[in-house]
Amino acid sequence: MPHPLEPLSPQEVRQAASALRKHLQITSSTDIRFKVIDLFEPPKAQVLQYFHVSASDIRIHRKARIYYHKKPSQVLRKAIVNVTVAKVEEDEGIPDVQGPVDWVEFAQVEEACNDHPLVKKEVEKLKLPAGAKVVNDPWAYGTDDANERRRLFQCYMYAILNDDPEANHYSLPLPFAPIFDAHTLELVNFERLPEGEGKEIDAETQPWTPKEPVEYSERLLEKTYFRNDLKPLVITQPEGPSFNIQGRCISWQKWTFQLGWTIREGPVLNDVRYDGRSLFYRVSLSEMTVPYGDPRSPYHRKQAFDLGDSGFGLTSNTLALGCDCLGHIAYFDGIRVTGEGEPVHMPNVVCMHEVDQGIGWKHTNVRNGQASMVRDRQLVIQSTATVANYEYIVAFVLDQAANLHIELKATGIVSTMPIRPGVHSEWGTTVAPGVLAVNHQHLFCVRVDPNLDNGPNSIQYDDCVPVRNEPELDPFGCAFRVKSTVIDQPGGYDLDLSSSRTFKVINPSSVNAISGKPVGYKLHAVPSQMMMMGPETFNLRRGLFASKPIWVTKYRDGELYAAGEFTNQSREDTGLAKFAARKEGTAKTDCVLWHSFGITHVTRPEDFPVMPNEKMTVTLKPTSFFESNPSNDVPRSSQALNRSTLHQEVRSSAGQKEAKCHL
Amino acid sequence: MPHPLEPLSPQEVRQAASALRKHLQITSSTDIRFKVIDLFEPPKAQVLQYFHVSASDIRIHRKARIYYHKKPSQVLRKAIVNVTVAKVEEDEGIPDVQGPVDWVEFAQVEEACNDHPLVKKEVEKLKLPAGAKVVNDPWAYGTDDANERRRLFQCYMYAILNDDPEANHYSLPLPFAPIFDAHTLELVNFERLPEGEGKEIDAETQPWTPKEPVEYSERLLEKTYFRNDLKPLVITQPEGPSFNIQGRCISWQKWTFQLGWTIREGPVLNDVRYDGRSLFYRVSLSEMTVPYGDPRSPYHRKQAFDLGDSGFGLTSNTLALGCDCLGHIAYFDGIRVTGEGEPVHMPNVVCMHEVDQGIGWKHTNVRNGQASMVRDRQLVIQSTATVANYEYIVAFVLDQAANLHIELKATGIVSTMPIRPGVHSEWGTTVAPGVLAVNHQHLFCVRVDPNLDNGPNSIQYDDCVPVRNEPELDPFGCAFRVKSTVIDQPGGYDLDLSSSRTFKVINPSSVNAISGKPVGYKLHAVPSQMMMMGPETFNLRRGLFASKPIWVTKYRDGELYAAGEFTNQSREDTGLAKFAARKEGTAKTDCVLWHSFGITHVTRPEDFPVMPNEKMTVTLKPTSFFESNPSNDVPRSSQALNRSTLHQEVRSSAGQKEAKCHL
Repeated sequence: MPHPLEPLSPQEVRQAASALRKHLQITSSTDIRFKVIDLFEPPKAQVLQYFHVSASDIRIHRKARIYYHKKPSQVLRKAIVNVTVAKVEEDEGIPDVQGPVDWVEFAQVEEACNDHPLVKKEVEKLKLPAGAKVVNDPWAYGTDDANERRRLFQCYMYAILNDDPEANHYSLPLPFAPIFDAHTLELVNFERLPEGEGKEIDAETQPWTPKEPVEYSERLLEKTYFRNDLKPLVITQPEGPSFNIQGRCISWQKWTFQLGWTIREGPVLNDVRYDGRSLFYRVSLSEMTVPYGDPRSPYHRKQAFDLGDSGFGLTSNTLALGCDCLGHIAYFDGIRVTGEGEPVHMPNVVCMHEVDQGIGWKHTNVRNGQASMVRDRQLVIQSTATVANYEYIVAFVLDQAANLHIELKATGIVSTMPIRPGVHSEWGTTVAPGVLAVNHQHLFCVRVDPNLDNGPNSIQYDDCVPVRNEPELDPFGCAFRVKSTVIDQPGGYDLDLSSSRTFKVINPSSVNAISGKPVGYKLHAVPSQMMMMGPETFNLRRGLFASKPIWVTKYRDGELYAAGEFTNQSREDTGLAKFAARKEGTAKTDCVLWHSFGITHVTRPEDFPVMPNEKMTVTLKPTSFFESNPSNDVPRSSQALNRSTLHQEVRSSAGQKEAKCHL
Repeated sequence: MPHPLEPLSPQEVRQAASALRKHLQITSSTDIRFKVIDLFEPPKAQVLQYFHVSASDIRIHRKARIYYHKKPSQVLRKAIVNVTVAKVEEDEGIPDVQGPVDWVEFAQVEEACNDHPLVKKEVEKLKLPAGAKVVNDPWAYGTDDANERRRLFQCYMYAILNDDPEANHYSLPLPFAPIFDAHTLELVNFERLPEGEGKEIDAETQPWTPKEPVEYSERLLEKTYFRNDLKPLVITQPEGPSFNIQGRCISWQKWTFQLGWTIREGPVLNDVRYDGRSLFYRVSLSEMTVPYGDPRSPYHRKQAFDLGDSGFGLTSNTLALGCDCLGHIAYFDGIRVTGEGEPVHMPNVVCMHEVDQGIGWKHTNVRNGQASMVRDRQLVIQSTATVANYEYIVAFVLDQAANLHIELKATGIVSTMPIRPGVHSEWGTTVAPGVLAVNHQHLFCVRVDPNLDNGPNSIQYDDCVPVRNEPELDPFGCAFRVKSTVIDQPGGYDLDLSSSRTFKVINPSSVNAISGKPVGYKLHAVPSQMMMMGPETFNLRRGLFASKPIWVTKYRDGELYAAGEFTNQSREDTGLAKFAARKEGTAKTDCVLWHSFGITHVTRPEDFPVMPNEKMTVTLKPTSFFESNPSNDVPRSSQALNRSTLHQEVRSSAGQKEAKCHL
């Protein structure tokens, strides 16, 4: 029997699809169009019961969540299928929402655009060089009209001038962005793009200005272009890794967790424990949105929700040895479905390996020079999602001091628009000849569902505030206090750097014997500019989660997504603010901590053709959870284990080699 | 002829001391007491001239800066000695300041305290167990009286109950803190410490409450205490490192720099260039201060300036292979002096090695799954300073995308005070039985002396601000602009997260051909709570640099230290605010960018006995400095180079092994 949070197996996916088809009395595969079949997670109460009783005494039914269309209807439907007993438990049409994008329709729209006569006719007017190809990226349409009900894609178009499989078409944006209906595959509107600094669009498509693309494909760059002085750096684990894998239950250095994976979120950490003590029920990247700051139509609609619209799991790369990680690597697979509901195996969508992050802790006794230190060994669980042009690398990183880091790296290719040579726009930066990269924001939300010492938990914030005007107590004015505020009102909260405000999860019933304080884990947040767009805009109304850095909600099953379940062409955020609006008290109960953060990306030529990674790290750190440094028991670093090598040339005398930190 | 910024050689140190002795007509070594002999850096104008003409055409005299006492005077003296021509160019007494701490007086004060009859008599009253030893840490005294002119040390005292060379005496703080005069070695005051939650001090020293220390020495912990499942992780560079060292001139992956080192600052990067283009004249950690938030005497005076009072170079660890770095390591040495002016060799005070920091950049073409990626190889130049109980690890980290990171890790042992068992104090956390760790701030200042494209440079800040109330331009309200402000007024400036305010150095005369913007490097700051103590306090008056996160000043030779040259027992900060008070315009000239940042450290039991590192990273990133991604020329990652190994157990089928990101 699988772990209750184990992703569906291929067989379970087939069983779920089959049960639904049977329930709907569908006999032809053309009468149904599957979009997503994923695990429908059991109620938390049930899973916690499973954790705490003998696993054999409780049988949790396996269930699938299915998004699909009953053709020819355009209405998205959602079904919950009990796979264990082959029964459809829920099945409903959800009017007025758009489901996420899937690869089937993505390919269909792309093809419809490429093949459309009007598109071809306009492309001809460009008089591209002989052999040039034209490609397009269908984009989630965004929202600028509350009455729009069609399922639309905006196709941004590009040229390719060579046959290389990695030709950088983003370096040759074309001034077209036709809109297609994904259900009918009809051209809804042929939009042309401004190429100057303002809104003006040429009256007629003009011949293309010849330009050289900026390439990143190794095959298109001269051999002499590359650095030739980078020497190999090899990481080996001669005795194997320190982790242990049983299915998707992983143990490493006192940590244990169940590695979940969903089409929407990619990797998820479930039931995270340290030394047997429960820390978190579920830690995940919940949502992200990327609004662009160029007001010129159609750019005003550009606002991807790369989890809700596309899915970080669905767009995950198949990772490869020697590329995405370095050292001794374990991989985990995923599953998506075809339009017919058949499972498609996605190999190596998650990698896991150990890294050395320098000094973990160190102290030297100055009286005798004796030093002790441990290295900072970490376990990295990582995925890369490619959302058309952009790449996001998400990693959960565990360390030996019981810290859990959530790392996000933004890389890939910035979204590009055409701009006439020599012209610049205030809405972005010219990153290559004829290429405008519009300024934008990447706004993420991480969801932390705590279970510290099995709960109930509270969330509080601590402010460091100076003592003022208490001369008796503080004659020299140096004193400061930690002022704690327990949050009982769900909603959005602000960081406050001026008081080092720190949000933390505590278990008020579990008191640290040393400090006398309740056990806790604090959030090291990423202080960020929130979404800039105002409350009247579709941008913010769709992504309210990005209006406040911290959210606290009362737990409810199924409330996993910061901007709500359906974000594609959404008109409002049905996530955090709605959960909070129930006004259910959040203190000493089952509460959830959410952190929204991100970067305002003012683009640079240095971001092109592929952008050097921009990294953000959120960390959860124990505070009075343990009675001493949890990494005090890590074996001390020594040359016998580390086997470093000495660079000899800089030695000024043989005597210096004798220095040792640890004997 | 050495590089003009090369630290003094042992011979030059001897020559400088000798020239000064001769000048002063000193014949007996007891008539002079040397504290510091270090390079007196030549004027920037001269060094720049040296860079830009043939080095043989210019001869820059080598000079030493000497801090010393002409005994028996207590007045600190400062001399500038031209070593090249053996001439004392300046020599003056500096009344009313205290020079930095040196190891000679540290040892003298420590001994004076240990041996003093009154101290011994009070220790006896504690009735420590047989065999117990008593040790003390002489602390820079701090300031609470504008009229104090003596050179004082506050000796915090601890017990040691075993013979281990790494016995953790910080776990057994004693309730004494006698004050000694460092010149006379006399006991000035025998202060006793509060042991309750308030100020109250017992009328008479009471017998010690037996307690077990919390130890970190491997020899004192049971073998079974340690984790036994950490497997070795070995980093090798079979073809050697990618760096090249010529003396202290280092080249690595298009970077070149001269590795400076001073007694006060530790490692310094001079003349930093990328691909031959000048970036920075000098990058350094300039100062730090650590005020404590406990108002109870004598804790109100605890405020270390670990660069100005002690010296990050002077307190640097001798690093050891297999401990402080992992992989292929080069080391560099330093020099300090004895009281007699003799050079003392400090082996391995700086280490340098390459690390792999995961994915540098990546893009996958979703049309065919073809991916390109480069790894993020970095060069780390690192030192560890032990300032009594605490350790600071400073690292300059260069990467292939032309980013320069300045990393600070705080580790070591928190400063501990006695507290009665079962009692807690609002001023800190009980981190072990009978051990209070007071809350405090670590406030650093990094100095960036730019020379982008050989200057002149300006410093500006960019704010990302939404367009509001321009419906014609921005009908849907999504637009935002980047508003730039060039700084011409020296002084302190604020960060503003609400506009993603970014400070950057630009060269207004050097325009990027692609973006049309001036070349620049931007500062990724560490947004932090500034010093909490108010403007009337000695804390802030001594550390004004920590009142604002950003400072801009007009360059002037010798202005290297954020809190001024002499911080020990200082009464006011003679650094940034004074430099700024000259009101010299800072635009399009030789300007300097300073960044103050830090952490407010609310202590945890998890920080004891040795604290897991707390890391802060400041980054300088090119922005329109290059015409494309500077790491586009890094050889693509491939298994042939990386030689990673596959964890086999998780493979579900043989077919999955074929995935490749790069052929």
